[in-house]
Amino acid sequence: MGELMQIIKERRSIRNFLQEKDIPEDVLNQVLEAVKWTPSWANTQCWELIIVRNQEIKSKLQETMGKGNPASKAIVEAPVVLAVCGRLNISGYYKEQVTTKFGDWFMFDLGLATQSLCLAAHDLGLGTVIVGLFDHDKAGQILGVPAGYELVTLIPIGYPARGSGAPKRKEISEFTHRDRF
Amino acid sequence: MGELMQIIKERRSIRNFLQEKDIPEDVLNQVLEAVKWTPSWANTQCWELIIVRNQEIKSKLQETMGKGNPASKAIVEAPVVLAVCGRLNISGYYKEQVTTKFGDWFMFDLGLATQSLCLAAHDLGLGTVIVGLFDHDKAGQILGVPAGYELVTLIPIGYPARGSGAPKRKEISEFTHRDRF
Repeated sequence: MGELMQIIKERRSIRNFLQEKDIPEDVLNQVLEAVKWTPSWANTQCWELIIVRNQEIKSKLQETMGKGNPASKAIVEAPVVLAVCGRLNISGYYKEQVTTKFGDWFMFDLGLATQSLCLAAHDLGLGTVIVGLFDHDKAGQILGVPAGYELVTLIPIGYPARGSGAPKRKEISEFTHRDRF
Repeated sequence: MGELMQIIKERRSIRNFLQEKDIPEDVLNQVLEAVKWTPSWANTQCWELIIVRNQEIKSKLQETMGKGNPASKAIVEAPVVLAVCGRLNISGYYKEQVTTKFGDWFMFDLGLATQSLCLAAHDLGLGTVIVGLFDHDKAGQILGVPAGYELVTLIPIGYPARGSGAPKRKEISEFTHRDRF
């Protein structure tokens, strides 16, 4: 198995972090470098990332999540939370007009960037969990996300305190078709 | 630079393919394996991929694209076109109810899977280009995509006939913020 395939296969959602072990800036920078080189709709690069280290802000973000969210503790325990935002009305657009039935493609491009981010983090020994379930408007207010942008995910990132098992995946034959669906 | 970072940085959009060089099934399978291990909303794995090798179908798909689309030739010249579809109403949902302001997260999860796919392809010496601009309903009809699913991208894949330059990217400082946007 090649190195890339191993990284893709072995990256897990991590919700428990070593609280005493911070992420050095140069290591975090490599994770951001992976985002930088992600492809996007007509190279629009709609992503904007807020690097949250402030503990008070993390606590406020935690309050925007339901108590049952399994990543709730991770938000305050991880040394860094990456708040991933998208600029609206550029991805999927041409001359300010929507070009497809899917309207704004910011969610697609943020997905591309997020996989780069998670793989690079894992490769550097860092754990991540992609959190999408919280009150986006409240969290956006806390982080000062301006009009024209949407906060989409919160990604706690840090050195894993413990690993986790791999959720079962569909076999390739279960999600592929030949020539027609 | 680590191997992963090199793959992320050096993957380009490829629109010119060696027409005489087919993709062996075991190589294509490794690309699909990368999709299989992509994370997704609550492990819903909404992706469905149609592996199009039939030349007549590729020609019909080409007709759903605007003539000015720079990937138009790639659709018929690549040995394989991967038609990436998403099952609706599962990603972003809990007990059949939308959970966030973004509604269906299928675009986000397909973005995650697509980056896995493109990186694995590049690692295997294959080129890809993510095509999002075409008549999705017409192309979906050609491929027999059923109700409840959406065809989102067509990805020509094959051995590159020639490379292409890297479009300029924003510097990390241009898309990051500290603690607040």
